[in-house]
Amino acid sequence: MPNFLPLATTPLETPLLRAIRDIHTRFTPLHDGEVASYIPELGKADPDHFGIAVATTDGHVYEAGDTAVPFTIQSVSKAIVYALALDMLGSEKVEAAIGVEPSGEAFNSIRLKADNRPFNAMVNAGAICCSGLLAEAAGDEAFELIRTTLSRFAGRELEVDDAVFQSERQTGDRNRAIAYLLRTYGGVRGDVDHILDTYFRQCSVLVTARDLAVMGASFANHGVNPVTGEMVASNYAVARTLAVMISSGMYDFAGEWIYRVGVPAKSGVGGGILAALPSQLGLGIFSPRLDAHGNSVRGLRTCSALSDAFDLHMLSRRDDVRTCIAADYDFRTVPSKPGRQPHEQSILEQRSGSIRVLELAGKLSFATMDYVTRRLTDPAGVPAFLILNLHRVSTITDAGLRLFTGLIRNQLPASTTTVIAGVEGNSPVAPQVKAMKEEGVRVRIFPTYDAAVDWAEDQIVYRHGGFSQIGIEADLSGQALLAGLSPQELADLSRLGTRVVFDAGTRIIDANEPPARVYFLVRGMVSVRSMHDVRLSTLIPGMAFGELALIDQPRSADVWADTEAVCLEISAEQFRAFQETHARAADRIMRNLAILLAGRVRMATARIDMLTG
Amino acid sequence: MPNFLPLATTPLETPLLRAIRDIHTRFTPLHDGEVASYIPELGKADPDHFGIAVATTDGHVYEAGDTAVPFTIQSVSKAIVYALALDMLGSEKVEAAIGVEPSGEAFNSIRLKADNRPFNAMVNAGAICCSGLLAEAAGDEAFELIRTTLSRFAGRELEVDDAVFQSERQTGDRNRAIAYLLRTYGGVRGDVDHILDTYFRQCSVLVTARDLAVMGASFANHGVNPVTGEMVASNYAVARTLAVMISSGMYDFAGEWIYRVGVPAKSGVGGGILAALPSQLGLGIFSPRLDAHGNSVRGLRTCSALSDAFDLHMLSRRDDVRTCIAADYDFRTVPSKPGRQPHEQSILEQRSGSIRVLELAGKLSFATMDYVTRRLTDPAGVPAFLILNLHRVSTITDAGLRLFTGLIRNQLPASTTTVIAGVEGNSPVAPQVKAMKEEGVRVRIFPTYDAAVDWAEDQIVYRHGGFSQIGIEADLSGQALLAGLSPQELADLSRLGTRVVFDAGTRIIDANEPPARVYFLVRGMVSVRSMHDVRLSTLIPGMAFGELALIDQPRSADVWADTEAVCLEISAEQFRAFQETHARAADRIMRNLAILLAGRVRMATARIDMLTG
Repeated sequence: MPNFLPLATTPLETPLLRAIRDIHTRFTPLHDGEVASYIPELGKADPDHFGIAVATTDGHVYEAGDTAVPFTIQSVSKAIVYALALDMLGSEKVEAAIGVEPSGEAFNSIRLKADNRPFNAMVNAGAICCSGLLAEAAGDEAFELIRTTLSRFAGRELEVDDAVFQSERQTGDRNRAIAYLLRTYGGVRGDVDHILDTYFRQCSVLVTARDLAVMGASFANHGVNPVTGEMVASNYAVARTLAVMISSGMYDFAGEWIYRVGVPAKSGVGGGILAALPSQLGLGIFSPRLDAHGNSVRGLRTCSALSDAFDLHMLSRRDDVRTCIAADYDFRTVPSKPGRQPHEQSILEQRSGSIRVLELAGKLSFATMDYVTRRLTDPAGVPAFLILNLHRVSTITDAGLRLFTGLIRNQLPASTTTVIAGVEGNSPVAPQVKAMKEEGVRVRIFPTYDAAVDWAEDQIVYRHGGFSQIGIEADLSGQALLAGLSPQELADLSRLGTRVVFDAGTRIIDANEPPARVYFLVRGMVSVRSMHDVRLSTLIPGMAFGELALIDQPRSADVWADTEAVCLEISAEQFRAFQETHARAADRIMRNLAILLAGRVRMATARIDMLTG
Repeated sequence: MPNFLPLATTPLETPLLRAIRDIHTRFTPLHDGEVASYIPELGKADPDHFGIAVATTDGHVYEAGDTAVPFTIQSVSKAIVYALALDMLGSEKVEAAIGVEPSGEAFNSIRLKADNRPFNAMVNAGAICCSGLLAEAAGDEAFELIRTTLSRFAGRELEVDDAVFQSERQTGDRNRAIAYLLRTYGGVRGDVDHILDTYFRQCSVLVTARDLAVMGASFANHGVNPVTGEMVASNYAVARTLAVMISSGMYDFAGEWIYRVGVPAKSGVGGGILAALPSQLGLGIFSPRLDAHGNSVRGLRTCSALSDAFDLHMLSRRDDVRTCIAADYDFRTVPSKPGRQPHEQSILEQRSGSIRVLELAGKLSFATMDYVTRRLTDPAGVPAFLILNLHRVSTITDAGLRLFTGLIRNQLPASTTTVIAGVEGNSPVAPQVKAMKEEGVRVRIFPTYDAAVDWAEDQIVYRHGGFSQIGIEADLSGQALLAGLSPQELADLSRLGTRVVFDAGTRIIDANEPPARVYFLVRGMVSVRSMHDVRLSTLIPGMAFGELALIDQPRSADVWADTEAVCLEISAEQFRAFQETHARAADRIMRNLAILLAGRVRMATARIDMLTG
């Protein structure tokens, strides 16, 4: 038992599953309410059935109780058929025919708005009008279109309960009256029987609590069914349908629903409730006993209990915008990275305010990104190089992206170069950053923070003549690795080595090869790059590389010639020979090497402190 | 010009400010609608006034146009007075007296619900009832209480426009009728004139668009005025008031409002609109021309335009729960940290699956935390030590914390030790983690990832007898720093040094002191700790510390004796003396030191790669 494995092999119960099971147990004894009886077939439902299903936006479904028992969808269908109509017929046409105001009346009210439109698509008049629009457009195909759409929302093929359909048709005089009234005002056109058949059939589709949860999750997931991955409705249709569900989905209980629960929902007299909270979850409940409004009693209680337990109310958002900036500094307060020569260090130190770094974190939304932009309103605080490190950013919303783009395009002066760091290929925000770049936003993008800082520092050093000495030949006396050696010792070492010229673009050291040589750079510029081709540092004349060969330690990075590079190359064997004859000098070099490495350890530790701090 | 400062000195214009100014410019030419005239004083308003203010939840206020022009608050007061009543009288009493359903009628309708309660507190009947409840409870102080509350929401002292108040009183017969009707049913008690005076005065309080924005931001900020920092309403009152605003705040335009804008709002016939989006913003608009519903025409257009531009609709949430897990690994895939002895390494390698790390990121909400819990349902995947690194977590919501607690308390088996890492004192989630701990949740908390891994590894090493040799005396031959030395050289070095015994709990090395000695640990255990008292590594017999003294490099960490610790102490002078007489051995030691340091650089680089990768 090496890994302390627990003995159980059944899946562990997550807190949400536990909560759902608890709620199911708690409300099972609740026997208030009556099974719908105005359609004889509905009265046959088993009043004790009770199922709760929760589907997440990543496609997991939690279930408790009778989640596989089929029942007719009834009015829950209205939400999905409305979304279908918006997508298929266009919002203009649908919105012209059906209002979006709560009616304040029972679901089967025949009353219309003052302009003779149905109040909304969640009451019978609006739903019949909606089915009528589809029947007009699709003719005999209308119902199959609806059934297919309901099936795609559920992620499986749904069928009609023919007995219920016949029962609906036989007892549907009130709906017949509504349909004829609508035709009076042009709300529906064509054959009323065909329209009503479409509507009655749509109400008679069989679903389970699990189906309703997945349907809800398809709404919550912005129109993509998270179980099948299929796009089942447009963003627009989803957003508008949820809005109507909020104001009118729970019959004449809407205000109370918003007050107490605050999750868009639609109930049906079959005992089903579908609820959908964007980016959070879909909820499906089945329990056939209804209250006076026609809503499932246990369904309402379950929604309330879940909303209370987990603050699901749509207005319950709690974010502190300030947490989106994890750090904000320039290099006056943070030391620059290692790998710079003293004269470069001196240029960078004089201009330590030229680079400002904002480390962003979490979600860049409207509110958080606005906060970020406000940190950059003082012209004196906007540097030549602004590095925005997105490494810890998990999401950028559309609105956040709009403000981000506006920041770079309009807010920052032209003298500021914006650099985005921390966006590797697998970053969750890579697509948005790429889109921004493709839109022509003037920005430099680097996969890592280090690469971004290096690039910005190089720009500063370059602008201030720091690379002018690339072309000047450096002798060995300035080499930190050779500090303390006498002129004679330096001359002897120099004689021992070989002068080698590398063309620009040559790989001088391959990290995967065994360490065999140390190089002293005499002229030109080389860069040290990680396995992932990230430039770790830039070396100029007077600096050495490959020095771990002196102690037979493996390479950790490649070295490339950025320009033509002249080097004094000394092999490990040559150095051993030098050591034989120059013990004092060799000991000195080893000590210098230890000092250089100790400095690197310090720098790396400081960097880790900053990253984890 | 060392820092490339731009020449401008006025604040840079953020994208949101730019958008607000653009919208202001766009709608300024809009002259539709009429100034309210049913109260003669209101008719005197300048119809061209137009101000837009946006207040953020961190207390910044953006303004465009006439945001400092005073006007009477009118029905906007209803929202705040309702919140006040909920807080002062208790929700039970208020909710028993006033409904929460939209009325579907004009704001001044005299119609009541079937149970003779006003439909909601946003129509005149409900607001009069609300003021009546306050008048009943506070008597003559009622209005001053209301004025003070409005002032606290606005963050400044507000005054009454006496001319408007007199005008309201003289023309208030409809409201008088409503008040008497309410008294018939016990909806208000006591002197109707006093109640109406309170109500008319409340409507006549002078505010600016800026005031409405700050009031809105107080709602958006969960009851804390973000400008003054004062708590002005409870969470409960804020949430319930916003819910009623959503369903009934825009008079009989509610459904359309939810459909098109989706931000809780309240308008007044003075031309003001207050809107509040939780955790996002407060919005205040002033433009006196009203549409047929009594809503400011330019105000509605501004709300719509802002909502469209920045997806402010309350149902417009877009999060991918999957981004909350930045990494998920055990030590089968990631090498353990440095600083372990070979026998410890071997224990750890055999049990590399005993530690699993989840690096969490962004916001731990209901949905994301549920996703995290679902990653831990497979009993075979739940290790002895589960390290949850919260370093990149920006927020934990209440619901997220509930699931987090449930995960540790109920889901994970007792054989799993949960370790929370990355929570330093200044972490945004430190309070929640502390609260969890105080509630008795069995969890270990470490400020850094490294400290957490070290601790968990120590536990594993300890459980498998890894520290049994702490008590066994190690001779110098096993020291990596002395590898390759002859027995004679070791004996000579040993003779040179001093055997020192440190009590448990002694600080052996102070990072701030100059490096003067190297220590070879002979018996016991010591730990290397950072300036912030984070344990960087644990050393056991056979390991050295303080070795940078050999190359005169500054200390970077403290070393403490965990147990009684026996060391061979060698000063820098003694080592120099050894070097004189033992050149070969000293050279060897220097080379060993370079090798040790090269290993540390490699490890640190790998760690940085992981942190930034």
